[in-house]
Amino acid sequence: MSEPSYRRMDVDERRAQLLERGAELFTSHRYDELSMNKIATEVGISKALLYHYFPSKQAFFEETLSAWAERLRVRTEPDPNLPPVEQLTASLDAFLGLVEENSGAYRNLIQSATAVAEIRDLVEEVRRATAERILSGLYPAGAPPKARTAVSGWLWFMDGACLNWIEHRDIEREELRDLLLGVLMGSLIATGSPPELPQVS
Amino acid sequence: MSEPSYRRMDVDERRAQLLERGAELFTSHRYDELSMNKIATEVGISKALLYHYFPSKQAFFEETLSAWAERLRVRTEPDPNLPPVEQLTASLDAFLGLVEENSGAYRNLIQSATAVAEIRDLVEEVRRATAERILSGLYPAGAPPKARTAVSGWLWFMDGACLNWIEHRDIEREELRDLLLGVLMGSLIATGSPPELPQVS
Repeated sequence: MSEPSYRRMDVDERRAQLLERGAELFTSHRYDELSMNKIATEVGISKALLYHYFPSKQAFFEETLSAWAERLRVRTEPDPNLPPVEQLTASLDAFLGLVEENSGAYRNLIQSATAVAEIRDLVEEVRRATAERILSGLYPAGAPPKARTAVSGWLWFMDGACLNWIEHRDIEREELRDLLLGVLMGSLIATGSPPELPQVS
Repeated sequence: MSEPSYRRMDVDERRAQLLERGAELFTSHRYDELSMNKIATEVGISKALLYHYFPSKQAFFEETLSAWAERLRVRTEPDPNLPPVEQLTASLDAFLGLVEENSGAYRNLIQSATAVAEIRDLVEEVRRATAERILSGLYPAGAPPKARTAVSGWLWFMDGACLNWIEHRDIEREELRDLLLGVLMGSLIATGSPPELPQVS
């Protein structure tokens, strides 16, 4: 391996590590409690090196959020070869895994979702994109308004149920997944226009 | 009517009016954008008179929130003589009426629910009390953990669906009410422990 590409790899890895630590820092501290100085101390690098990677605290914060959203998107990306309900089951499993592994960060993110405009925008954008993905999977010919309302509500249900789950931890992850799926399907039946799902062959 | 009691009524009415205007002001402005000076100008009284009713902006803000929570509680208080599902239907109707009449304030309240600690505490306390009311109505002998998770999630569902409803306004209030009821019942069935409801005689 040539030296430049080795160095490049090193830079990308360091960057990814910083973004991961950033997610922890920004979700465990208020934004105004953190300075570039404090961040550098917390992650154990010099302030100059931190500035080498990120021009400002705002830039570091925004890249941290983008990296988190990208991680969420990749982890929950459905396999288009699976039938719609299996796609949903797999995505939900991946999402709950992410919540379980990062319960503190998840709780802080949802609970500060409206304190910080960038986080609110991120959470809203993730909900919007997820609703669209679910609706276009279940209603390929177009979703009726009540189904759209139900899926929007269900995404909130998911966050409320996840917060309750990580607070109490008295039901299994698979039980929560099946509950969430059951609630989504029950909600769509309650709209009077349930999705027409292909029969399992 | 004697003069003192007339005056007293006048003071209470004025106070109630100020609290109502306060709800509008605090939900349409950021907390730090408002000063006692600005509030007095907005409501059209002198700053001295405003201080006569409320010792500080913080006190005015807190009383505004308490008055709003009390109004919500009174409006959605179920009639204990009705069967559980009819109680829920009536409470939901009342809640959706309140949302419809105050859609701007409702949206701002939910969207700023975590920006301001007092609002977050209020929203959490309302959700907690509502969950308890619903669970004790449907599971008088005690609710299983999954039912608790489902009801917590459902209260989030309600806020998500209501925000979507006031944004699009393309379904009727009665349709949304029935959807919400259907989702709650469907969610509890999905837990595997649906409530045992008395048969309608």
